[in-house]
Amino acid sequence: MIERIAILGTGLLGTSVGLALRGAGFRGTIVGWNRSAAGAETALNAGAVDSIASDPLEAARVSQVVVLAVPIYATLDFMEKLSGVLGPEHLVTDVGSTKGEISDAAGRFFNTPERAAFLPGHPMAGKERGGAALGDANLFRGAVWLFTDDVSWQRSAKSAELVKDWRALVAAMGSKTLDLDPMRHDEMVAWVSHLPQFVATALSALLQDEVGDAPELKDIGGRALREMTRLGASPYSMWRDIALTNTEAVQATLFALEQRLAHLRENLRTPGLREEFDWANQFRRGQ
Amino acid sequence: MIERIAILGTGLLGTSVGLALRGAGFRGTIVGWNRSAAGAETALNAGAVDSIASDPLEAARVSQVVVLAVPIYATLDFMEKLSGVLGPEHLVTDVGSTKGEISDAAGRFFNTPERAAFLPGHPMAGKERGGAALGDANLFRGAVWLFTDDVSWQRSAKSAELVKDWRALVAAMGSKTLDLDPMRHDEMVAWVSHLPQFVATALSALLQDEVGDAPELKDIGGRALREMTRLGASPYSMWRDIALTNTEAVQATLFALEQRLAHLRENLRTPGLREEFDWANQFRRGQ
Repeated sequence: MIERIAILGTGLLGTSVGLALRGAGFRGTIVGWNRSAAGAETALNAGAVDSIASDPLEAARVSQVVVLAVPIYATLDFMEKLSGVLGPEHLVTDVGSTKGEISDAAGRFFNTPERAAFLPGHPMAGKERGGAALGDANLFRGAVWLFTDDVSWQRSAKSAELVKDWRALVAAMGSKTLDLDPMRHDEMVAWVSHLPQFVATALSALLQDEVGDAPELKDIGGRALREMTRLGASPYSMWRDIALTNTEAVQATLFALEQRLAHLRENLRTPGLREEFDWANQFRRGQ
Repeated sequence: MIERIAILGTGLLGTSVGLALRGAGFRGTIVGWNRSAAGAETALNAGAVDSIASDPLEAARVSQVVVLAVPIYATLDFMEKLSGVLGPEHLVTDVGSTKGEISDAAGRFFNTPERAAFLPGHPMAGKERGGAALGDANLFRGAVWLFTDDVSWQRSAKSAELVKDWRALVAAMGSKTLDLDPMRHDEMVAWVSHLPQFVATALSALLQDEVGDAPELKDIGGRALREMTRLGASPYSMWRDIALTNTEAVQATLFALEQRLAHLRENLRTPGLREEFDWANQFRRGQ
């Protein structure tokens, strides 16, 4: 039933969505828009979109499904603007990493029988560097694609149908879907995604201070060091909005880790060290 | 010139040394000893050693080069015992992760013209799980193999020759060698190896508390979470001796990271976050 999709933002995620849709056998039209013309061009050349739109709102209006693949504040901006030009025959969805503010806006601007549907989404997939050139048809394969849908939202029959069809396309792209409450989502991703990122950033920045002027010492660390600092390459431009829209949950996880590191530091010569290793081993066994 | 090597301890590193020696074209005899018979048997079946000795001191006595591949305190025990049975026609070396105490003992028990040579060594290679079954002929390929040799040590001509030949074998196994002062070694590996390990342990233990009972939430984290916690599987049995023999240096790195995380936590909504990301990006660019 979905025949025309607009992808607003053809960075890593937007380009990958286009490629993955093609990989999943989607035969309709995909139109792309990107803030920078170069990124749009790359997505077009990669086959992620069929054409480039100059006006994102017009591209959305003539599509059935609109995928917002821009940073969180840009997503919130688009939501307000799109709510004025779309109607009950449209579905808007997004790929943003925090869902509290986006789900709030989805309730305010969408999801009545007279308005477009908005399905807040978050594929748990990415790379430490962004950009259309890294777009990957298999990025979502085996990943979990989270939704923070709200059963109290009242949608038109047509847009409810589009929601169902979009969920089917996400499954066809190879993702497992999981529905969470938006507050629970933001708390959970703070633990399993944002905390690991901010730890890698802090560790990398600290090591840049300590051994940054001695490249031969970075070699020494080998694979373990490379893995523990890989996310240190992540761009501020993406993480700023996450820090701003999930501040309290992220602060709580960072504070908990600071305390845990202090506990370990104070127990390097006590049986408490064995307990921490045993407990950490337990986490990995469950993976 | 080296024709007979004894490997005392055929765990992951000892077994890998045997396999890598064969891969490097070493044609002499390799005898192995291991505290548990099962580990010795696995190394023998893998072709890492030609035979298994029941008496490690006797195996050392009839070899030219003795490789100690046991935990650090076991290494220190062996050093004292071996100093009584070996002479200036022998070289002993090790693969331990801290070098301060081992280099001290090397000066006390070895490295005079009448005694055996001891070359403190530390290949920067490993896996998060141990055991002969994971032994790998290519483990040391591309890795850095550190030494904390001391130019003031006076060795017999014969044992000095063995030192030179062992260094050549290490290079033939594919490692780059680098010489460091033992105190500098222990400080540096605290930053680039021990800190990443203890962070992974603390993060894994914390996440076991927070999401350990919800396996579907671990899936959510994807590759980033898996990488940041892979070292959480590391065994206490190996890291206990590192924590005990490098306590102060490790404490200093943990304390520095606690402060860095607190700084980041307090700056999630300020331009300070951009500075941390930029600095972390800088570290990764240098890799």
